[in-house]
Order: sequence, then C-alpha cells, then structure tokens
Amino acid sequence: MGCVQSFRDLCDRPKNTNVRVSLPVVCFVWQTAMVILFGVFIRYNTESDVRWREFRRTNNISSDIENDFYFRYPSFQDVHVMVFVGFGFLMTFLKRYSFGAVGFNFLIAAFGLQWALLMQGWFSSLDTDGKIKIGVENLINADFCVAGCLIAYGAVLGKVSPVQLLVLTLFGITLYAVEEYIILSIIHARDAGGSMVIHTFGAYYGLAISWMLYRPNLEQSSRLQGSVYHSDVFAMIGTLFLWMFWPSFNSALTDHGDGQHRAVINTYLSLASTVLTSVAVSSLFQKQGKLDMVHIQNATLAGGVAVGTASEFMLMPYGSLIVGFFCGIISTLGYIYLTPFLEKHLKIQDTCGVHNLHAMPGVIGGVVGAITAAAATETVYGKEGLINTFDFDGDFKGTTPSRQGGMQAAALCVALVFGIGGGIFVGCILRLPIWGDPADEDCFDDQFYWELPEDEESVEPVLEYNNHTIRNKNVAETIFSVEQT
Amino acid sequence: MGCVQSFRDLCDRPKNTNVRVSLPVVCFVWQTAMVILFGVFIRYNTESDVRWREFRRTNNISSDIENDFYFRYPSFQDVHVMVFVGFGFLMTFLKRYSFGAVGFNFLIAAFGLQWALLMQGWFSSLDTDGKIKIGVENLINADFCVAGCLIAYGAVLGKVSPVQLLVLTLFGITLYAVEEYIILSIIHARDAGGSMVIHTFGAYYGLAISWMLYRPNLEQSSRLQGSVYHSDVFAMIGTLFLWMFWPSFNSALTDHGDGQHRAVINTYLSLASTVLTSVAVSSLFQKQGKLDMVHIQNATLAGGVAVGTASEFMLMPYGSLIVGFFCGIISTLGYIYLTPFLEKHLKIQDTCGVHNLHAMPGVIGGVVGAITAAAATETVYGKEGLINTFDFDGDFKGTTPSRQGGMQAAALCVALVFGIGGGIFVGCILRLPIWGDPADEDCFDDQFYWELPEDEESVEPVLEYNNHTIRNKNVAETIFSVEQT
Amino acid sequence: MGCVQSFRDLCDRPKNTNVRVSLPVVCFVWQTAMVILFGVFIRYNTESDVRWREFRRTNNISSDIENDFYFRYPSFQDVHVMVFVGFGFLMTFLKRYSFGAVGFNFLIAAFGLQWALLMQGWFSSLDTDGKIKIGVENLINADFCVAGCLIAYGAVLGKVSPVQLLVLTLFGITLYAVEEYIILSIIHARDAGGSMVIHTFGAYYGLAISWMLYRPNLEQSSRLQGSVYHSDVFAMIGTLFLWMFWPSFNSALTDHGDGQHRAVINTYLSLASTVLTSVAVSSLFQKQGKLDMVHIQNATLAGGVAVGTASEFMLMPYGSLIVGFFCGIISTLGYIYLTPFLEKHLKIQDTCGVHNLHAMPGVIGGVVGAITAAAATETVYGKEGLINTFDFDGDFKGTTPSRQGGMQAAALCVALVFGIGGGIFVGCILRLPIWGDPADEDCFDDQFYWELPEDEESVEPVLEYNNHTIRNKNVAETIFSVEQT
Repeated sequence: MGCVQSFRDLCDRPKNTNVRVSLPVVCFVWQTAMVILFGVFIRYNTESDVRWREFRRTNNISSDIENDFYFRYPSFQDVHVMVFVGFGFLMTFLKRYSFGAVGFNFLIAAFGLQWALLMQGWFSSLDTDGKIKIGVENLINADFCVAGCLIAYGAVLGKVSPVQLLVLTLFGITLYAVEEYIILSIIHARDAGGSMVIHTFGAYYGLAISWMLYRPNLEQSSRLQGSVYHSDVFAMIGTLFLWMFWPSFNSALTDHGDGQHRAVINTYLSLASTVLTSVAVSSLFQKQGKLDMVHIQNATLAGGVAVGTASEFMLMPYGSLIVGFFCGIISTLGYIYLTPFLEKHLKIQDTCGVHNLHAMPGVIGGVVGAITAAAATETVYGKEGLINTFDFDGDFKGTTPSRQGGMQAAALCVALVFGIGGGIFVGCILRLPIWGDPADEDCFDDQFYWELPEDEESVEPVLEYNNHTIRNKNVAETIFSVEQT
Repeated sequence: MGCVQSFRDLCDRPKNTNVRVSLPVVCFVWQTAMVILFGVFIRYNTESDVRWREFRRTNNISSDIENDFYFRYPSFQDVHVMVFVGFGFLMTFLKRYSFGAVGFNFLIAAFGLQWALLMQGWFSSLDTDGKIKIGVENLINADFCVAGCLIAYGAVLGKVSPVQLLVLTLFGITLYAVEEYIILSIIHARDAGGSMVIHTFGAYYGLAISWMLYRPNLEQSSRLQGSVYHSDVFAMIGTLFLWMFWPSFNSALTDHGDGQHRAVINTYLSLASTVLTSVAVSSLFQKQGKLDMVHIQNATLAGGVAVGTASEFMLMPYGSLIVGFFCGIISTLGYIYLTPFLEKHLKIQDTCGVHNLHAMPGVIGGVVGAITAAAATETVYGKEGLINTFDFDGDFKGTTPSRQGGMQAAALCVALVFGIGGGIFVGCILRLPIWGDPADEDCFDDQFYWELPEDEESVEPVLEYNNHTIRNKNVAETIFSVEQT
Repeated sequence: MGCVQSFRDLCDRPKNTNVRVSLPVVCFVWQTAMVILFGVFIRYNTESDVRWREFRRTNNISSDIENDFYFRYPSFQDVHVMVFVGFGFLMTFLKRYSFGAVGFNFLIAAFGLQWALLMQGWFSSLDTDGKIKIGVENLINADFCVAGCLIAYGAVLGKVSPVQLLVLTLFGITLYAVEEYIILSIIHARDAGGSMVIHTFGAYYGLAISWMLYRPNLEQSSRLQGSVYHSDVFAMIGTLFLWMFWPSFNSALTDHGDGQHRAVINTYLSLASTVLTSVAVSSLFQKQGKLDMVHIQNATLAGGVAVGTASEFMLMPYGSLIVGFFCGIISTLGYIYLTPFLEKHLKIQDTCGVHNLHAMPGVIGGVVGAITAAAATETVYGKEGLINTFDFDGDFKGTTPSRQGGMQAAALCVALVFGIGGGIFVGCILRLPIWGDPADEDCFDDQFYWELPEDEESVEPVLEYNNHTIRNKNVAETIFSVEQT
C-alpha cells in the first residue's frame, strides 16, 4: 500500500494541459507506423480485389450482387454512424465539453480503427502468404473494436487529455483483439452484437481506468458537470442514432439471410420495450413524475446491449421484449442509485454512467446468450439450423447446446477479466504525470484543449464590484464597460 | 349543446401536471400486456426463421440475397430515421419544448410500434396456426402506423401530457389498423406512400383531437409559442432527414424491382419541385422578401406527402414535378392564411400546422392517386404491368383502371371519416380531467414534465424590484445577489 | 483596365437586399421551365419502368435483386445525406448565418438537381427516341453535379443573395455537365469520386467568383465572421455525415462488385489517416497545443477528396493511408497560412476555406489518379481487370496505362480551366447591381434574408444611456423597461 501511495504522490503533481508536443508526436509517429505496417501486411480480399470477376467465373457465382459487399454495406454504414455520430453526440450533454466529446471521439475512432484492422487481422484474417486480406467485414469488425474504446471513453469523459485517450485506445484495441480471439475462436462462443466482447469489456475497461484515475476533489469542477438545455438536445441526436441503428449493429456480422433478418427483429423489439420501462422508472423516482433527460438519453439504449449476444438465436419476439423490459428498469435504477454509490463508496467516477448503459446490460446480455444457447433444441432450430446457428462444425462438430451455454458463460468471464485487468494496468500507465491531463478544478472544460470562440471562453467570469461578487457575465461586462467610459 | 357544455365545465377544472402515478402505471401495464400478447401471437416468418435455409432449398431460391431483408432493409432504416429523428426534431422548433418534442416522440413511437405489430398482424399477417409471422415488411408497416400518430402529435404539440399522448397513440394505432385493412384489403385501393392511410388519417385525427381540446386562453402561453435561433436549426435536422429519406418512405413497401425504383424517382422529383415553390411563396408574402423558417421547415415536405399514393404508378417525371409544384404553393399559403383562420374561426389550434403539411397534401395525394389510376392504359403499362401494378388478380381479376380510380376515391373518404370521427371520439376521452395536461398558461413549456438543467429552469423569471418588474433573468439574479450581500 | 474599373463602379452602388420580386420570379419561372422540359425529355429507364418485368424475362435476368436499384440505392441515400445535411450543416458554423447556410444549401440543391438531370441527360443518357431515360444512376449523378455548386457556395458563404446563388447554380450545373462530358467521354478519363470533375472544378469556380466579388471592406462584418460554441457543434454534424458517408460518395458510381467494394475501403482508410495528421498539425501550430475547430471540421475531410479519382483503382490500402496522411497536413496548413494569404494578397475571400478542403486536395486527387493509372500493370490487375477498370474497350481498345495517365492529367487541366474560366465569367454577371446582395457591413447576417425569431433579431443591439453605450442586449432591455415604468 505504501508503494501505491508513493506512486500516487508522484503522479499527483501540478497539472499542465499543454499537449503541443505530445499530441502531434503521437499522431505522426503512429500514423507513420500504420502506413508501414499496412504496406507490409494489408491487402484487398478476393471480393474487393480486381480479380473478383475471375473468382466469380471460377466459382460459378451468378451475379455481382452476391459479393459480400451488398449483404453488409448498408449495415456497415449504420454502424459507422453509431460510432461517429452516435457515441460522439451522446457525450455532448455536458454544458462545456461538447467539442471534447464529439472531437476526441472522432480522433480516437479514426486512430483506433486502423490499429484494429491490423490486430484483428493478425488474429483472424491472416492468409497463407502472410498478408491480411480485408473486405467490408473487416471494416465492420474494426468499427466494433473501436466502439469498445469509445464506451471506455464515456467513463472518463472530461477528465483526461487527448494523449491519454490515444493511449487508452491503443491498449484497448490490443486487449480487445486478444479477448475477441479467445472468446470467438478458442472458446468458440457466439457474440453477434458483442454484449460480452464489446460492451462488457469496454465498460469495465473504462471503469477500471476511472477507478485508477480517481479524483478526490472532482467536485471543484461540479459547476461544469451538468448540461444546459441545448446540450441535452444535441445529446438526443446521439441517443436516437444509436437507438435507430442498433438493429444494424447487432446484425452486421450475423449469417446471411435469416441470421441478419432475425437479429434485426430481436433488437428492434428489445429496444422498443426498454424505452417504456425506462420512462416508467424515470418518472416514478422523480418528484412530480418529471422525466430525467439522463435516463431518456441512456437507459433507453440498454435493451440493444442486452440482446446483443442472443439476437441471432431463436430468442423469439416475446423473449426480446422481456430482455428489454428488465434492462430498462435496471439501467434507470442504476443511474438513480448505483452511480452515486459507485462514486462515493467505490471511488469510481463514471461521467456518462457506462456502468448502467453498457456494463450491467452487457453482463445480462452474456447471461441471456448463455441461457438461450443452452436451451436450444432441435425442435426449434432443426438439425441443420442448430449446426448453422452455432457453427457446430470443424473442430466443434458434435458440440451440444448445453455445452455451448457453458462456453458462453466462460466467454463472459473472459470479457470481465480482460476489462477489469486491462483497465487497472492501463490506468496505472495513465497516472504518470506526463500526459497533460487537467487539474481537478479544470475538468469538463473544453478551454484547455480547444480554441474556443471568443465570446464564450468561459461560462462564469467573476468580477468584484463594490465588494459584491458579480458572477453573471453579461452584467459584469456591462458594468465594466460603463465604468470604463 | 347543454350536455356538451356541462361536459366541458366538468373537464375544465384546475390542472395538475403530476403524472408520477399515471405515466409509470400506463407504461408498465402496457409493456407487460405486450410481452404476454407477443408470447401468444408473434413468431418469426419464414425469412427470419432459422428454417429459411430449408425453405430456400425446397423453393429453389438460389441465394440468400433474395431474402426480402435485402430488398427492404435499407429503406426500413431510412423510414426508422424519419420516424425518430425526422418527426422528433421537426417539432423541436419551439424555444422551450425541445425535450417534449423529441422525447415524447420517442416514447410514443416505441410504444406504438409494438401495438401496431399486433393490430396489423391480426388483420393481415395471421397465419393458419393463429400466429402472426413477422419479418422486415411488418417492421416497416409498424413504423408507418406510428407515423400516423406522430403526425397527430404535431397538431397538439405542447398542449397535452405524455399520458394523453399514450392514449392518443393507443387509439390511433387501433383506428389506423382498421382503416388500413378496409382501404387496402376490402376496397383494394393502392397507397404506396400512405397519402391517404397515413397522412390524411393522421392529420385529421390530430386536428379533430385539437378541436376537442380547444383552449380559449392559449394566448397566455404565447411567449413560449415561438422559436429561438438555435431551436430553428435543430428543427432543420428533422426537416432534412424527412426530406432526404422520403423516397425511401414511399418506396419501402412497393413491388420489388421497378416498383421501388420508380417510387424513388417520383418522390425525389416531387420534393425538389416543392422546395422551389415553397421558397417562392414564402418570399412573396413577407415584407422585404424575407424567408420564413416555418415554411422552409414544413412546406418543403408537402410534395413527398402528395406523391405518396401515385409514386408507384406511371406518374411520369413531369407529373411528379407538377404535383410538387402545386403542393409547395398550397402548403405555404396554408401556413400564411389557413392556420390563423382555423384557429380563429374553427377553434382548431394546430401547433405544427399539420393541416398544411399532411392534411391538404394527403388529400391531394389521394386525388392524384385516383386520377392516375383511372387514367392508366395498357399502352403505357402493358397488360402484365397493369395487372402487377394494381394487383388485378385473385378476387380483383378483371378490375378496370377506371373502377380502380373509383376505389381510390372511396379509400380517401374512408381515411377522412376515420380521421375526423376517431379524433372526435378520442378527443372526448382526452378531455377527462385525469390525464395531467398543463393549464393554458403552462403550455409549450418543458418544465412541467422534465427535470430541466438548473440554470435555465424557466425562460423569464419575474422579480419585483423597487416597484419595477424585472423580467430579464440575468439582471434579476444579479440584483438579487447584490441585494443579499 | 479602365473598362473594368468603370464596370466595377457601376456595380458598387448602394445595396438593397430586397428580393421579394426577383426570388419568387426566378423560382416560379425556373420551376415551370423544368416541368415543360421534363415533359418533353425525361422518361423512366428500363429498370424503373413498369416494363422491367418483361425486360427481365427477355434478358434472362433471374431476380429483381439484379435491378441496378439494389446495387446503388443505399449509396445514393448516403450521397443525398452528404449533399443536404453534410454540406448544409458544415456551413452552419457562423454565429448568425446558420439559416442561410442550411436553408440556401437546401434551395440550390433542390434547384440544381433538376437542371442537372436534364443537362447530364442530354450529354450522356439521350436515347434514340430523343428522350432521356433516368434511373438511380442519374439521381446520383445529379447529386454529384449539385455538390460541385455547393462547394462553390462555401467560398461565397454569407456574402451573396439567394438570387445570386441560383444564378451561380444555374451556370455551375451547365458548366459542370459540359466539363464532365469532355473529361469522361471525350478524354475518357476515370474519376470515380470526382476529385477533378466535382471538387477541383467546384472549388475553383467558387474561388474565381469570390475573387470577382471581392469586398474590400468586408472587415466591417468581422464581428459576425466567427462561430459561437453551439454553432460549432452544429457544424460537426455536417462534418461527421460527410466523413462517414464519403466511402459511399466515392463508390456510388463505380463498377458493381469489386469496384464499389474497393472504393469503399480506400476512402475509409484515407479519411482515417487524414484525421490524425490534421489533429497533429492543428495542435502543433496553436499556442498550448490547443485544437482549432475549423481544422477538425474541414481538414479531416481532405483525404476523401484526394482519394476520389484513384479510389476504384488498385491504390492499395497503404496507398490510401499515404494520400490521407499528406492531405491532412496540407489542408490544415492551408487554413493556417494560405487562407489569410489568399485574402490579403490575391483578394480572394474564401469563407469556408474551400481552397484547403476541395481545391488543393482535388488537384492532389487528380495527380494521384494519373500516377496510379499510369503505373497500372497487368501483374496487378490482370489482363481482364485492366480492361474493366479503365474501360479499355470500344473506341479506347488497346489504350495503355501510361497513355491513360496522360489522359487523366489532361482531364485535371480541363477541370481547372472550366472552374477558373467559368467562375470569372459568372462572377462578372453576379457583379451586376440587380441581385440583392448585402452591403459589406451586412455580410454573414441572416436578418436580411430571413424572418428571425424576435428575441434574437440581432446579436448586439446598442443603446445610449446616460452617455454610456450599452452593448449588452439583456441589460439594455431591462434599463429600457425600467425607464418606461
């Protein structure tokens, strides 16, 4: 403990938010590395290579429309919108951190997806010639991978520097690729919408980092830790694009045909159900039954997370509604009771409440997936359907549904371990006093990393006037100008 | 009349906007009912069921790409965006009702689509085993159904409680499903983009409710019945997503191949034409030729409504332009002359002007559809084309185009009757003093149903100071704080 | 020179922004002309005509899914979003010109796409019966054509009247169609994403017009030539939708199958790379390493422009990263050094910096395209691939890659000549004192063309009070109301 304490002391030196050297250096070095590594490793796959036409002829594929592109591109674009507009705008709710929310989200997503293509490629798309062959499926996978890191960003929003975010992303993508490989290829679990691989991992990764970066005096920034009217409306743009396109997210990588079709239906229903129970609980726990925007912006999405793993299974429409029903309740209650509890007692400061939106629903999603898999029967799936849905072939020929259920549960544990363990490790690194993070009283404030428009450089200028403290900027300015003349 | 008067007196008791009991109860009870009914009735259809692969083999379908999913999913997602972002943000234009606009839109859409799947399913997708088999087409239909209720919401925006909106939606979906069944299955009219089924019905339903809920003292809320600069920009997000995706709306359920293709072209052209004439009329009727944001936000969409029914027919590109041309003019003139007239003389308070955007263009769309159908000839359509376009087979084999025109006109009447009749009936129910609606002076104000960010709890606080009324909040606060010290 | 000077004097009469006659007249006359011309010339093509089913049978097409609609419609919708939301919101960054940005963008896009369908149709889709047969490909082409004019709008944003914009668009579309015909059909260059045809042409067209309309006293409007906090967030909506959907833009019209697939991958990678180098340069050149929103909003998109021409070629993934890498640097440096230089020394006032976002990257894109084409080998493309990718058949059978490279370079020159020459010509016309453009001190201000919400009619009202100038509106109002009582 003494060691940890002295390490903490070392880290808690006065802060300097100047990133003029570190940020450009990291970006340039990293992007150069990417160019080199892509040059060595990345090539087009058969379906995006100019030789596709030859391949078509050889393999007797009757039409260009059977190129995987046409099965997945519309879903890919929806996922892309979720990653950049969805996550980005969801985090704009803070009154003075919208630039950071949407801008750093943009930066780390663009940064992460390149690294994800490589990491995931090495694990799963490496061809016999030592090259990674990419197509639209890899782009979707890269976006998924990035989503995990953006979830983690939600937990530390407003409290870290852009350089720290790049480090968080670099390690996050790496951990994700390993974890995903273990879960999908070694354990052979199914995780269509990534309840475990993306949400559970990403949320606990972020929460563990936030715990490591605990700021005891964060209440000094409390004046900025809320929304204003229009920032809440901006956040609804994020909420709605996430909500609307979540069916595409959960179905983007499922099997062609009924697999994608069914995942869409399950997600659509689960999300609809979540909205109603979120609204109900939000209203029930506020004086006068008023709704809280935080719940509407976040808890309404929990159903999409929780139905992720099972969305490609025969969950049945009513099953999806049930999942959404309970997730809406649990997530909203999480915002009301759990977030304050975590901050006060466990020293986890979770800016966006990712524990309620991603962590708990992610775990629920893993459990629902395990149960649904274990309960699969030949009556419902048919012999062929069972094999196709769970990929019971190759090394896994003859696996039983109940065994698959066990593997799903094991996968959930792997995601948790990687998330928490990885987060503690990376959190340690991020405590080093070299990353340019803001002081406790300067959190949630764009002015330290962004050139702000002049007339709104700070929210509350303070002027002493006739022994009175004038906190209102408009009045302060008037008195000031009147006095001057 | 005396009876109506005493009923009105009964209803006009002091208002209480507390919905802490009613809103959660309705949500929970309803969502529970949905789970049960879905458990009993709703199953996957062949194309979303795991047995699709078997079906493919049996029916000799060569590729997964022929799953209906790939024909309709991109359009579905566009429609989904229109319902949640389009309608939601279009209504954010009020300076202090953006939460209600986008939040309640979200709530009633999620609520309504579940009920729509059931109601529409019972009427048209009920299988021999008593189950409703759903696929992507049902999801689109459910979104369409919800759109009707969201249009109605536009007429009563800011004047009703969320509980009233849920009741409005519950009855609206029910009426819609019956009306749709009569129009499409019994009368056998065609209505690709729902000019009659969705827009005419939805708009008159909302207007009739607004008439029943007439508020004689609404001018007490007039300070909030306008926009501010940024709320108008938010509304443009809604306008543009509706405008851009309207081709998907009108083509989402038309025939595969040329049907979808043609509906897109017709809608695209009609909408382009509407923009120009809306701008022209808006400029012509304002001093100095300035444009009015209300017209740009709304009237520019009228062409999409009016081309709805005929969009799958051989309307011809110039036909689409003509429809858009006149709708832009009529809709804009409606905002200038008709909306004030309706409010003053017919006691219909139409917050968003749905009469101009949906009702009139919807009726025009029905008429255009009837004429285009009646004018269809074998020269233009070919024998086979005529049969396919108008579904002249089964019970309707041998129907002539002119007879089809008559059926289209009859369908329009049905939509009108259901809209107006249903609206009056539901309006009656909504007058009961149990729903938590706001008083006349509290309309268009989010603070009664939403926890607002602290520093902007109300737009205009009032402070008496040295016998002067200080209405400006900033100044009031300063004086207040100065006095205190 | 004397002639030019006296023409300038003639043009520099006092300004009158009243467009109450000119705007409606232009809109009505133009839209009427469109109806007539569409009636004479435009028809559905085989795939959108009701006779598609017959065509399918005759041509042995096995499924409706092979209708071009299903290959291109998702990309079309993305392009549509870029044109209306992307370009529109990108320009909302000015504190008091958001209505003009998004509203006039809407107007000229709707106006331009109709004319584009005709102009492009006459050049390339004219059938033997003298009719232009349109399908989804024509709609995409029309949107592309409009994009060129919207880029030009970026250069003159805030300094022109809506009537001038319509004239700019009318000539812009005409020039575009001719230039496109020369480049694609006569020179037989390839330009998938329009680096030359759209971006180079559009940007230089706008810059030349801006040069012709040079306003020596524009600094009188400097108080409005900046952003406020929320207007920058609105602009990010535009940025992100452009960024996310750029892969659809570059792939919308490329070959079915691998052509579309590869264009998406190249664009996706180039854009990701650009984000990192833009951020790096932005941070490096600001005090304290702070990021500048102007760079994040604009320079991050340069990679999409620059990869446009070569996106369908075998550029290789690392090639795309390299293109993006340098474009991010060049574009950001352009904002820092070149835009002020252009304004001060070349008298080109470029409101949105289209020179950095479109002109330079467009030229780079043309050069990259020429090099990539010249370097194409049979080893990489295969014999058949080479012919398909570069369309080496018909009149161009036997063309060599190196010759193709030369043709690409020639095409770039054509785009430059049309852009600059056309811009000077149209700029001349727009200097005539009949178009209702604002005076130098009234630029970047919505109030001259829009009815603004009352409480924010102007940003800075001025009140003389006890010999003091009160510039703050809130205080001014209070004092005013206090005085009155």
